[in-house]
Amino acid sequence: MKVGGVPRRAIEAADDGRAVVIVDQTLLPARFETIRLGTLEAAAAAIRSMQVRGAPLIGVTAAYGMALGLGADPSDAGLEGAAAMLRATRPTAINLGWAVSRIADRVRPLPPDERAAAAWTAAGELAEAEVAACEAIGRHGAALVRDRFAERGGDRPLNVLTHCNAGWLATVDWGTALAPVYRLHDEGVPLHVWVSETRPRNQGLLTAWELGEHGVPHTLVVDNAAGLLFQRGLVDLCLVGTDRTTRAGDVCNKIGTAMKALAAREAGVPFYVAAPSSSIEWGLVDPERIPIEERSSLEVTAECRVPVFNPGFDVTPARHVSALITERGVCPPSEAGLTALFPERIG
Amino acid sequence: MKVGGVPRRAIEAADDGRAVVIVDQTLLPARFETIRLGTLEAAAAAIRSMQVRGAPLIGVTAAYGMALGLGADPSDAGLEGAAAMLRATRPTAINLGWAVSRIADRVRPLPPDERAAAAWTAAGELAEAEVAACEAIGRHGAALVRDRFAERGGDRPLNVLTHCNAGWLATVDWGTALAPVYRLHDEGVPLHVWVSETRPRNQGLLTAWELGEHGVPHTLVVDNAAGLLFQRGLVDLCLVGTDRTTRAGDVCNKIGTAMKALAAREAGVPFYVAAPSSSIEWGLVDPERIPIEERSSLEVTAECRVPVFNPGFDVTPARHVSALITERGVCPPSEAGLTALFPERIG
Repeated sequence: MKVGGVPRRAIEAADDGRAVVIVDQTLLPARFETIRLGTLEAAAAAIRSMQVRGAPLIGVTAAYGMALGLGADPSDAGLEGAAAMLRATRPTAINLGWAVSRIADRVRPLPPDERAAAAWTAAGELAEAEVAACEAIGRHGAALVRDRFAERGGDRPLNVLTHCNAGWLATVDWGTALAPVYRLHDEGVPLHVWVSETRPRNQGLLTAWELGEHGVPHTLVVDNAAGLLFQRGLVDLCLVGTDRTTRAGDVCNKIGTAMKALAAREAGVPFYVAAPSSSIEWGLVDPERIPIEERSSLEVTAECRVPVFNPGFDVTPARHVSALITERGVCPPSEAGLTALFPERIG
Repeated sequence: MKVGGVPRRAIEAADDGRAVVIVDQTLLPARFETIRLGTLEAAAAAIRSMQVRGAPLIGVTAAYGMALGLGADPSDAGLEGAAAMLRATRPTAINLGWAVSRIADRVRPLPPDERAAAAWTAAGELAEAEVAACEAIGRHGAALVRDRFAERGGDRPLNVLTHCNAGWLATVDWGTALAPVYRLHDEGVPLHVWVSETRPRNQGLLTAWELGEHGVPHTLVVDNAAGLLFQRGLVDLCLVGTDRTTRAGDVCNKIGTAMKALAAREAGVPFYVAAPSSSIEWGLVDPERIPIEERSSLEVTAECRVPVFNPGFDVTPARHVSALITERGVCPPSEAGLTALFPERIG
C-alpha cells in the first residue's frame, strides 16, 4: 500500500541480499523510519520489541531471521538454536512457529553450506505467499462486503469497524482485515472505517496512519466507544484479523476483540475475521490451550505504581464469528467450513 | 474514606463559610492537591474541566456553586443566570440539573438578602444527603455481595470488576459502586477489585488510587481486558455507577459500561448498578433521549492529527442489569422495581 503516494511493503529484502529492511513500527505514527536487520539476533529483537508486529509479518520476519542465522552458523546446532531463539520471542501468534518450522524443515536435509541460500529463497517465497494470500482475502472479503453494501441500500458510506492493526503493516502488503477495505476503496466504493484505539499499545493509531496515507476515510475511537457505535447503528460490519485460529473456527486475536464480537452480535452486525491459512492451527480444537501472552505493566501505566494485569489476546468463540475470510474464500467458522476450503486437512 | 490514613471528603465547606474546598482530580493520582472555590465561575469551571467529576459530586458542587453565585448576586437575574451557567457545564449527569433546580426552587420564594445563606444551608444538606445515600447503598450492596460470596464458597477473595470511578471521589464520601466494596473490606471480607482503566480520561487510575489509599487489594487492566477476565472466570460480580437512570431501569454511565454488561451476561456474572435516587430521571422512559456528551479529540490523542469521535457515555439497557442498588434497597431494573422502593413516584 502507499506511504506518501509511494507503494511500500512492511518488510523487504535488502538489495545486497544480506539483510531485510523493516519499518520501525514503534515509532509510528509519529515518524516513518526503516531499519536494516542483518543478523538473527536483530530479527529476534525486532519481533520481541514489536518493531515488527502482526501475526503474518512476525512469521515472515522470523523466516528471514532463520536465513540470517544460517548465514552466520549453518550447522545443525545453529539451525536449531536459531529456531529456538525465534520461537521464544512471542507466544501467541501461530504464524511464528509455523514459519520457523517451514524454513527449518526445508533446509535441514541440505548440506550446511547450502542452507543459508535455500532459507533466503524460502523466506522470500513465504513473503510472496503472504502477499498473495492477503490479496486473495481482499478479493473474497470485498465481494462479501459489496453484498452487505447492496443489502443496506448504499445511500451513505459503508461503516466498517476494525480493532488493532491488521493492515499492511501487520502483514507484508494489503493486510488481512484491511485488504477488503483497500480493495473496495480503490474500486470507488464509499466507505468509512471506525478505528478502535487498541490499548495498551494503541495499534489503532497504526491503522489510522495506514488508512490516512492511502486516503481511506476513518475516525479513531477509544475501545470503550464501540458499544455506543453499535447501539446507534453506526457500524454496518466488523472486520478483524486473527493471531491463531482453531480448527473449530475460534479466533484468538488482540485483547478486546471478544467484547466487540459480543456487541456486534447483540446489534445484529456481521463480525468477519480475515484468517489466512497461516493463522490456523489445524491440530488445535480447544482454544483454552492457546498461550495468552502477558506483557509488561509499563505498557498500561508507566507513571503509577499500581498492580497491573496486561494480557495481550483473547478468544472470540466461533459462535460469535459470522464468517472467516481465507485466501481460498469465505467459510462458516467451523471445522466443516474450514475443511471444505482446505480438504487436504480433512481427517 | 481515607487518604494517607486520614478520613477525607471530595468536597468540604471552608471554615469561613465563603468557599468550598475540592480535591483537584485532574492531578490525581500523581498529586493530591486541594483547591478553594470561592465563586460561581470557579465552581462552573471546576465542573467543566473535570477537576470535580462523578454525577453525585457534580450535583453537590453545582449546589454550592448556586450558593456562591447568590452570595455575589442574589437577584432573580443572578439566580437564573447562575442556574443556567451551571446547567451548561456538562450535559449527561442528571444530578447536575436536579441539584441546581433543588437549590433554585428552595430560594426563589425568599427575599434576595436571605437567598445566599439559605442556598448554602441547602447545599450542605444536599451534601449530607448524598453521603447518607452512599452509606446506605454500601449497606444494601454489601448484603447483596455477601450473599454472592456465600454462594461461591469463599475459598478465595471475591473478585469485583468496576469501571470508571464511582468511589468517594465521584460523590462526597463512600462512593456509589465502591461503597459496598469499602464496607465489606472494613468488615474483613476478603475481596479484590479489577479496575478498568476507562479511556480516554483514565478514571480507573482514580479508582486504583482510592482503593490503594484505603488498603483494598486491586489490579488495573485496560478496558479491552474485561472480556478475557470474564472468559477465565476471574470476575464474580460487577459493580458500576450511573450518571442517569431511566424510570425503566436503563443506565447511562461512562462509555464502555454497556460492553462490560454484555460480557458479564455472556459469562453469567451479575452486573449491579449503584443508583442513588438523585441519578434517576423519573420522567424519562426512552434512554435514546439522554444527551450523550461529546468531548474533545485531544482527550484521545494529542499527538496525532486524526479524525476522532469521543462520546463520554453509553446506555446499558435494563435487561443487561442484574439489579439496581439504591439508598432504599436493592430492586429489579424496572419501573415496577423502582416504584416499589419509591412509591411516591407511582403514576
